[in-house]
Amino acid sequence: MIDVVLLGYGNVGQHLYSAFEASSAVNVVQVYNRNPIKNLKIPQTQELSSLQNAAVSIIAIPDDEIAAISEALPVLDTLVVHTSGGVTMKALSSKNKRGVFYPLQTFSRNRPVDFKNIPICIEAENEKDLKLLQSLGAALSENVVEITSEARSTLHLAAVFVNNFVNHLYTVASEISTEQHIDFNLLKPLIAETAKKIESLSPSQAQTGPAKRNDTNTIQKHLDLLKDTGFSDLYTTLTQSIQQHIKHTSNQDQ
Amino acid sequence: MIDVVLLGYGNVGQHLYSAFEASSAVNVVQVYNRNPIKNLKIPQTQELSSLQNAAVSIIAIPDDEIAAISEALPVLDTLVVHTSGGVTMKALSSKNKRGVFYPLQTFSRNRPVDFKNIPICIEAENEKDLKLLQSLGAALSENVVEITSEARSTLHLAAVFVNNFVNHLYTVASEISTEQHIDFNLLKPLIAETAKKIESLSPSQAQTGPAKRNDTNTIQKHLDLLKDTGFSDLYTTLTQSIQQHIKHTSNQDQ
Repeated sequence: MIDVVLLGYGNVGQHLYSAFEASSAVNVVQVYNRNPIKNLKIPQTQELSSLQNAAVSIIAIPDDEIAAISEALPVLDTLVVHTSGGVTMKALSSKNKRGVFYPLQTFSRNRPVDFKNIPICIEAENEKDLKLLQSLGAALSENVVEITSEARSTLHLAAVFVNNFVNHLYTVASEISTEQHIDFNLLKPLIAETAKKIESLSPSQAQTGPAKRNDTNTIQKHLDLLKDTGFSDLYTTLTQSIQQHIKHTSNQDQ
Repeated sequence: MIDVVLLGYGNVGQHLYSAFEASSAVNVVQVYNRNPIKNLKIPQTQELSSLQNAAVSIIAIPDDEIAAISEALPVLDTLVVHTSGGVTMKALSSKNKRGVFYPLQTFSRNRPVDFKNIPICIEAENEKDLKLLQSLGAALSENVVEITSEARSTLHLAAVFVNNFVNHLYTVASEISTEQHIDFNLLKPLIAETAKKIESLSPSQAQTGPAKRNDTNTIQKHLDLLKDTGFSDLYTTLTQSIQQHIKHTSNQDQ
């Protein structure tokens, strides 16, 4: 049984709490949060000075507050980890042992997630702590991987492309459609299939469309349709990026 | 039973053929293709002059060849439709009755699709032909919708955003990761969840990330990581588009 203290009860904190509670291998002994949490079944505190000792203290708060809170922690005989994709392990104060426990997923309030397939990216300063995080991760997921801070920053950047940026393209499509009184739901089967496709094809192999086949007629028609939407620059940049990528790849093939 | 002649046996043609063959309401009587098709179990021809009459002739060939092939068809007592998202109905020759039968999905060779949930967007010049296409669509899908050529061109544009452009972002993420020896598979659960999320949230509601929260630190870190990749313009354009969209939406809220 691994004892855990959780610091922060936002999106990530709440999802981790539920997942740990459902695991027989982990015991959340306390939750720290700036504001009182309603209906929490275990001990909570709003004071860092009253933090309990546990095998692992998990900081699940916004990126730009991680360094400060780790500095404000008492010296504990505990491993202190954060859960961020974009923050290096060394941002944590060296007064405690440190590490990273980054679940690579997007979390929303009220939307349950199944941790089993979520990659948990771990990092620590020594073999013993790494083993502890390995066990903690294995309590939630079948996919625990050791990743350095450097690689994790690249992974986080890639995640911005496939999550934040992709979602923005959904938003653009939704706006363009709704503007013309077209039901956005019509596009949902295509959205689902586009994501599913790369389970069996590489994204390069799966690429289709006017940019790929250099169909200048269609591209021009689309730019005309986009004239007053504010999205034509985005269309042009994406089209050029696809075409540059194809050129680059076919040059490599020669 | 609706008799159908299929013109073209590329991605869309083959998938339509399989779906029609599986339906008890449709009978494909002949396939026209420029080149002979191996192992086809029904009559085929390479000559437009030997086309059989059928209730519907479906042209499933590249966009820029649709007008010419429809012009080259004999005068048939048949409804001639194309399957393209981006081509107007009137691109078809007026020598035959005309219409559109556009399945809104991405098709790949060797990847079976279930037509049941695919929106079939239909258009015709009169009520009787529309009814015929309605029945033909209903033989494949539970989601047959009448869409004008004008609305269809917008829908096709939106499809480019959620399919072609989204897939390119997967490609970018894959390249960035592979370059740093990070397994692209780690991102697949996130890709799947990003697509699933908009089944219960609007894409605007689902938006998260450094652009949305104007986290200039992280954005700068990402641009540094992208320096030699050729993808920094794409990152900047997408980040700005997210931020402009938020500004625009919050102005509307006031």
